[in-house]
Amino acid sequence: MAARKKASAPAGGPPRGRAAKSRAKTKAKTVDNEVTRRNQKFDALTVDLIRKTAGTVHREIRDEKKPDLAFPVRSLRNVSYSQKTGYFEMGRQKKVRTLTVNTVKSFAQTLRMMGLSKELVEGNDFATKRDAYYQSKNWEEARFDEQAESDTVMDDIEALFSVQGVSREQLRFIPDEHGGAVAGRLVVLDPDRETGEIERIDCTRFGSGAYSIPSSVEQLSFETDAKFILAIETGGIFQRLQSHKYWQTANCILVSMAGVPTRATRRFIRKLSDECRLPVYAFVDCDPYGISNIYRTLKVGSGNAAHLSQFFCVPQARYLGVTPQDILDYQLPTHPLVDVDIKRARDALKNDPFFKTHKPWQKAMDQLLKMGVRAEQQALAKWGLNYVIEEYLPRKLEQTAGFLP
Amino acid sequence: MAARKKASAPAGGPPRGRAAKSRAKTKAKTVDNEVTRRNQKFDALTVDLIRKTAGTVHREIRDEKKPDLAFPVRSLRNVSYSQKTGYFEMGRQKKVRTLTVNTVKSFAQTLRMMGLSKELVEGNDFATKRDAYYQSKNWEEARFDEQAESDTVMDDIEALFSVQGVSREQLRFIPDEHGGAVAGRLVVLDPDRETGEIERIDCTRFGSGAYSIPSSVEQLSFETDAKFILAIETGGIFQRLQSHKYWQTANCILVSMAGVPTRATRRFIRKLSDECRLPVYAFVDCDPYGISNIYRTLKVGSGNAAHLSQFFCVPQARYLGVTPQDILDYQLPTHPLVDVDIKRARDALKNDPFFKTHKPWQKAMDQLLKMGVRAEQQALAKWGLNYVIEEYLPRKLEQTAGFLP
Repeated sequence: MAARKKASAPAGGPPRGRAAKSRAKTKAKTVDNEVTRRNQKFDALTVDLIRKTAGTVHREIRDEKKPDLAFPVRSLRNVSYSQKTGYFEMGRQKKVRTLTVNTVKSFAQTLRMMGLSKELVEGNDFATKRDAYYQSKNWEEARFDEQAESDTVMDDIEALFSVQGVSREQLRFIPDEHGGAVAGRLVVLDPDRETGEIERIDCTRFGSGAYSIPSSVEQLSFETDAKFILAIETGGIFQRLQSHKYWQTANCILVSMAGVPTRATRRFIRKLSDECRLPVYAFVDCDPYGISNIYRTLKVGSGNAAHLSQFFCVPQARYLGVTPQDILDYQLPTHPLVDVDIKRARDALKNDPFFKTHKPWQKAMDQLLKMGVRAEQQALAKWGLNYVIEEYLPRKLEQTAGFLP
Repeated sequence: MAARKKASAPAGGPPRGRAAKSRAKTKAKTVDNEVTRRNQKFDALTVDLIRKTAGTVHREIRDEKKPDLAFPVRSLRNVSYSQKTGYFEMGRQKKVRTLTVNTVKSFAQTLRMMGLSKELVEGNDFATKRDAYYQSKNWEEARFDEQAESDTVMDDIEALFSVQGVSREQLRFIPDEHGGAVAGRLVVLDPDRETGEIERIDCTRFGSGAYSIPSSVEQLSFETDAKFILAIETGGIFQRLQSHKYWQTANCILVSMAGVPTRATRRFIRKLSDECRLPVYAFVDCDPYGISNIYRTLKVGSGNAAHLSQFFCVPQARYLGVTPQDILDYQLPTHPLVDVDIKRARDALKNDPFFKTHKPWQKAMDQLLKMGVRAEQQALAKWGLNYVIEEYLPRKLEQTAGFLP
């Protein structure tokens, strides 16, 4: 793995003190193993793609032609849902940005941003959207005035490379948001950024705490004998299952999503499920938000970010509960559906390709609307705080074939 | 440690399946060590306090007197800031709830809630606010109709016992929100809920991930040779310092607050700092929100929750940066202050006892208002993505005596 390269500093020179002199750089050490080889191969591929894209532009300029870049259109109009792949897919519509007097600045910014990505991959480093914006302050005329501009350019580049199967995280642009928490029968293998040595992180050994997923998970691999992944909406239920070591009883891996799962959390579940062939069961509140926002986003992605779905959605996820039928079967305390709930459910039934494809979901949503109520997963506490562990989950897990799709 | 007691199930009886029969309870095993002894002692004290409070009520009823409970008034009017203790303190005002025909329901609910707390301590379990609300569905006439009601009763009980130095977490009512992330030179000791065996969690061994703080940290203890705790506002900076193992270079512990720190995160920092005598340095954005909300809440608590300050604030915290002066010294890219920023800064100067007490903060806030701009901690990326590691932090840490109070 390459030794750390310093990100470029501006011409004027930043304020530097004595501190810099006293630090020696750690020498990079190659560690020969499968994880490192796989990561290096992927990095080489990414750099190669950036080079090719830039090379084409360069050649056209030398041939005195007008170079252009074609980005996939990122909008709901350009999205389709295929039951076969299991997620929202981007269509073939492209927007073409040609180098002209009017586009010269954004064209230059796009190329600089690609250059930053190449530098990051080669230096084995990363940048958040905000980091990239501030880095640009040192790009002279190509600097961004607002972060919104640099975000758009980054989204375009992400869409451009996603067509070739390269994700934003592989371009080393990482989200600023935290990841979810994980506990259970899982060892995470994480190569050290500088030495490549593998850290083995045993997720059974965190007491009442948990493993916090890093912003980027591309470099991780896994060892596990668990039978499934349980993706949980609320921190409260996660803490209960973790403190009572439910993962030991049920032989599983617990992931706390804390609401709509972040990119890192979705990618982590997807990668873990793919690589270890584990089923994913979602355990969320029974309301239109839990079903059509949290669960649907986890499973098939969201409409306006379909270029991400191939990396981030978890098409193999299934819905354990809480289901509308559970409200009746377990006599759960409920709250009435409010207007925004009803609107959200009707919208899903009418416009969302996912719900339009799956009959069982249409029936479940109709049932919820007819009942006119919603129930939280913690409502099971009515029957005792640990009823969820001792009764609800074991009973549900006897009938996984009956889970909603 | 007591074996797990089942939380009571309602009279009607919940739906139970075959699953329950096949599970044997793990037998509790006493582990003789200091952590367990300390926790057991504290639990015994908590149960004793609950017993005494309930005993007084019981005695008065038997003597045919009207029993009452006196709760501290939870409001800004009943708060003072002392530089000596270093946090907002609750005053002596009390509201008295006497058992009458009108108050019988809330009086009964208060006693049931105290009973639930006693059950949780004795069973070594815990409940979130939401759990407690749903548990009450099984209290017949004492059930709560809305969670807002049960939250108020819980807050009252918390205030009542805080006067005796017992926190809500010791009453086993835990927050639903996740804790922050931790990495660095720290071993967390966490006793198993059932067996009391100690799990040793080495926070240097999380690769690019981190240790996720549990909802309640009372049972934890620590081993460390670190020199300080660095409390960081953004996930992006935390991920950078963690991935580059800054904690190794600087011999410290990194904590990601992800905005205003949660209760669990603040309590974790406080406990770690107290028990290991470590200074705490805050590293946040230079804007009125970062200073007067994030930093001030971390250090002295917040006005309307002064009964929590004794447990949750970190009076030993000091402000590393980003300071208004840093904006000049490091020529940072800025954004203009907007109206809400200006209002927040003026409010702090005029009304906040913390800022009114500390002259250096008044000067710094005045400087920020005069400059009319704010800067994010990631703005340091202008000078290179790792400038924060290689230059900014080392230079600041050479002058800790100059940190804002």
